[in-house]
Amino acid sequence: MKFSELVTALGLDSQTIIGGVDPELQGVAPLKLAGAHQLSFLENKQFFHQLATTQAGALFIPEDDRVLAVMETIMHPVAYVITAQPRLLFAKAIDLLYPLPPAPVGIHASAVIGQGAVIPETAFVGAHAVIGAGVQLGAGVQIHANCTIYDRVIIGDHTIIYANAVIHEGTEIGRDCVIHSGAVIGGEGFGFVPDREGTWTKMRQVGKVVLEDQVEIGSNTCIDRGSIGETRIGQGTKIDNLVQIGHGCMTGKNCLLAGQVGLSGGASLGDNVVLGGQVGVANHIHLGDRVMVAAQSGILDDQTPDAKVMGYPAFPVKDFFKSSAIFRKLPQWQRLLRQVQKKLDLNSEEVD
Amino acid sequence: MKFSELVTALGLDSQTIIGGVDPELQGVAPLKLAGAHQLSFLENKQFFHQLATTQAGALFIPEDDRVLAVMETIMHPVAYVITAQPRLLFAKAIDLLYPLPPAPVGIHASAVIGQGAVIPETAFVGAHAVIGAGVQLGAGVQIHANCTIYDRVIIGDHTIIYANAVIHEGTEIGRDCVIHSGAVIGGEGFGFVPDREGTWTKMRQVGKVVLEDQVEIGSNTCIDRGSIGETRIGQGTKIDNLVQIGHGCMTGKNCLLAGQVGLSGGASLGDNVVLGGQVGVANHIHLGDRVMVAAQSGILDDQTPDAKVMGYPAFPVKDFFKSSAIFRKLPQWQRLLRQVQKKLDLNSEEVD
Amino acid sequence: MKFSELVTALGLDSQTIIGGVDPELQGVAPLKLAGAHQLSFLENKQFFHQLATTQAGALFIPEDDRVLAVMETIMHPVAYVITAQPRLLFAKAIDLLYPLPPAPVGIHASAVIGQGAVIPETAFVGAHAVIGAGVQLGAGVQIHANCTIYDRVIIGDHTIIYANAVIHEGTEIGRDCVIHSGAVIGGEGFGFVPDREGTWTKMRQVGKVVLEDQVEIGSNTCIDRGSIGETRIGQGTKIDNLVQIGHGCMTGKNCLLAGQVGLSGGASLGDNVVLGGQVGVANHIHLGDRVMVAAQSGILDDQTPDAKVMGYPAFPVKDFFKSSAIFRKLPQWQRLLRQVQKKLDLNSEEVD
Repeated sequence: MKFSELVTALGLDSQTIIGGVDPELQGVAPLKLAGAHQLSFLENKQFFHQLATTQAGALFIPEDDRVLAVMETIMHPVAYVITAQPRLLFAKAIDLLYPLPPAPVGIHASAVIGQGAVIPETAFVGAHAVIGAGVQLGAGVQIHANCTIYDRVIIGDHTIIYANAVIHEGTEIGRDCVIHSGAVIGGEGFGFVPDREGTWTKMRQVGKVVLEDQVEIGSNTCIDRGSIGETRIGQGTKIDNLVQIGHGCMTGKNCLLAGQVGLSGGASLGDNVVLGGQVGVANHIHLGDRVMVAAQSGILDDQTPDAKVMGYPAFPVKDFFKSSAIFRKLPQWQRLLRQVQKKLDLNSEEVD
Repeated sequence: MKFSELVTALGLDSQTIIGGVDPELQGVAPLKLAGAHQLSFLENKQFFHQLATTQAGALFIPEDDRVLAVMETIMHPVAYVITAQPRLLFAKAIDLLYPLPPAPVGIHASAVIGQGAVIPETAFVGAHAVIGAGVQLGAGVQIHANCTIYDRVIIGDHTIIYANAVIHEGTEIGRDCVIHSGAVIGGEGFGFVPDREGTWTKMRQVGKVVLEDQVEIGSNTCIDRGSIGETRIGQGTKIDNLVQIGHGCMTGKNCLLAGQVGLSGGASLGDNVVLGGQVGVANHIHLGDRVMVAAQSGILDDQTPDAKVMGYPAFPVKDFFKSSAIFRKLPQWQRLLRQVQKKLDLNSEEVD
Repeated sequence: MKFSELVTALGLDSQTIIGGVDPELQGVAPLKLAGAHQLSFLENKQFFHQLATTQAGALFIPEDDRVLAVMETIMHPVAYVITAQPRLLFAKAIDLLYPLPPAPVGIHASAVIGQGAVIPETAFVGAHAVIGAGVQLGAGVQIHANCTIYDRVIIGDHTIIYANAVIHEGTEIGRDCVIHSGAVIGGEGFGFVPDREGTWTKMRQVGKVVLEDQVEIGSNTCIDRGSIGETRIGQGTKIDNLVQIGHGCMTGKNCLLAGQVGLSGGASLGDNVVLGGQVGVANHIHLGDRVMVAAQSGILDDQTPDAKVMGYPAFPVKDFFKSSAIFRKLPQWQRLLRQVQKKLDLNSEEVD
């Protein structure tokens, strides 16, 4: 595909292209690896230093004087488009440059299908997949190899479930969702009640999981079903690999949970909440809309909308960095305090 | 089931019911969602504010003056029982209100059974499960779809292994255990010895895993086999999802390990130890009986029985909260120390 | 096998054996459990106290005066070899004392093999494994039960993939690798671009994963494929269970990543980097050769070669322990500062 054809297909005027060449594109590549027939992009400042030497034939770049100045210095033929959101345009370009193979269709002969399961002709059930009784798959749903779908699961149109994932009974999954390999959705939550002998009585978990439309769940992530109600993941929320979502958690729309996050039972998130990797959220905590939590932080208190927090227990990011910088200097402070003690003749056991 | 029948079935006198109605119960629900035909309960203070407006037809509540005062104000018909352990009674009520379907029985035609495997008639082996040679299943054992049970595994009566779990060779699992989907029990531990060329020589792991009776293992949790001995999980211990148990770890009885906990090789826990989510325990550390560790803490030192610790490295919880509160105020301290330096004419490089 | 035969087979002179006996060895065991026909070893000082009472018939011990003094006091028959690397010698002894069973060979009748897959006669494909189209397996490769290998995966000679692992399309795996059960290699990375409506546009992930030779990947670990390039794990690198490797990460040779580590997208490691359990590394961070990171630390900045760091954000280990020790004493400092304030008549709001 010519770059000009791509740009037009992305809904832009091909006149927005700067540079006299119109390369034939064969794919995309990172700035430092791209060649004359590849498209690349710049958005993150971290990669700015790679721009001057890129060999990419086509680029999406931000409107930024420093960037434009570098573009002037590039000697080989390059065509580019200036855009407010280079990464977004690049993502859309990938869809055009790498057309998906036709979606697989049909039920593999080795799949095991339970009684009363509804599987439309446009759906796909892979080799050795096991589909329980009363399962309902929507149009174009893909269940890949070695998945186990327990009884009475409902899966909306065009949702894809990759290999070896497990969906427990009664789970409801919306349309256009993606469940990655090895994920376990709707497993029994961790509900045990201590009794007087110090043993744990199991509270059987009779709730369910609901994933709304356009939800994405990472590989080997676990989402437990509600203890006596629902666990619900809001529309458009994206969850990375190895995340733990306890029973009864709720997320709003369009949240982003990075790898290895853990939500304890009953935690609830507003819309557009972003949690960095390995963040932990305590039982029944509520995070307001648009809260952002830095990686590895531990949330022990409710957070108001738009809070940006960090640390354990977490507090505002900019304060955290101040305290954290001082933490490193505490040994110097110790030396100072010893001088103060001496000068003021105070009790020395306080400092050492 | 009438509430009075339920209460009787739980071993209480139906005279303990307060309130003139005796609702027909159709199930359980959280306080704020329960209706006239549902049972709910109150134990956690966090939910106290939901009591006044609950529409639940039946309740288990604690003996607490504030709670009883609210009960007086509820205008709709409600029947309730006052109990020292509302949650425990509620858990037992769920078992009665939601009778389990009859346990599945028999070997699915698509399962692959190894030579010499012993599978009693009361056991269940699901579709596409693979059972190794010499495996011994007890009465009523359930092996769900797509599980892989390697050779010579022994599984005690009535243990359930959910879908796509993997049990490696020689593992011994007690009776009444539950292994959730995707768990990997008895995988080879992480044993590598550095040599002088900077490469890692593998120490083959020739030990095994023993799970005692009534152990529960969460989804996608990994328990490595002993390097040259056992990894052992004590009776009644409950382990949540995505937990990592290294080779040679030992837990006592009735421990509780929340999600994403990691025990390094050789760590050992006494009885009734409770670890919060994402806690890490270093190599060969011992935690005494009843130690409690707050979520995300890192344990680098042995802990005496009954210790309650937090932080990284962990120390007593109440001290941690004091230090942690001061951590947030360090920037204020910095301003104070600058004044002190100035007033006492001390070297200023210590503070900034 | 006689101890003398073992020592000779390990390439040492049997004259290096000290002690007049030459036990017939039946296996290995930890110091405190070993008996007269078992080999054990001492390397870690933590186990020194177990030496005096060990019942082991044979030992590998370090050259250390304290150790040798204890050996003098052992009254039962024991034969031992003094070596600079007892654990390494012990690891090699295990290989000799526990010969592997003959490797399985052949394709199980229940496996599903895609079009054009190349499977040599020396390879093994277990029950219910699913092999995609165009997959190429090397000599002696083992694919265990219930694995899913997507299309066009290439796997080098003698690599073993344990049960229920998933390898996504186009992944390249070197020779002599080990992939443990439930691992997911080559899944789609977590690439989402925010748009102006607050929703997330997916950036389809068109890169791949390359595992070089002798790489080992733990159970339920996830390695995402590159977004537009590669994710690459360097030769001889060993990765433990439940680790998350984001898209576009690179590791050098012979790195060691302990359980539950998380590398964010684009992180890169030099050679021989060692990361403790639950460590997190931020996006696009680079760790130089031989960097060592203590467990649970969070890396927010590039690290120069040989750095040893700890904490969040991480800084040099020895400084961390100093700051950390003071952190515990901050309440005492608070008392001191109150005295200082009073004595110097400073504003009291700074401290409390």
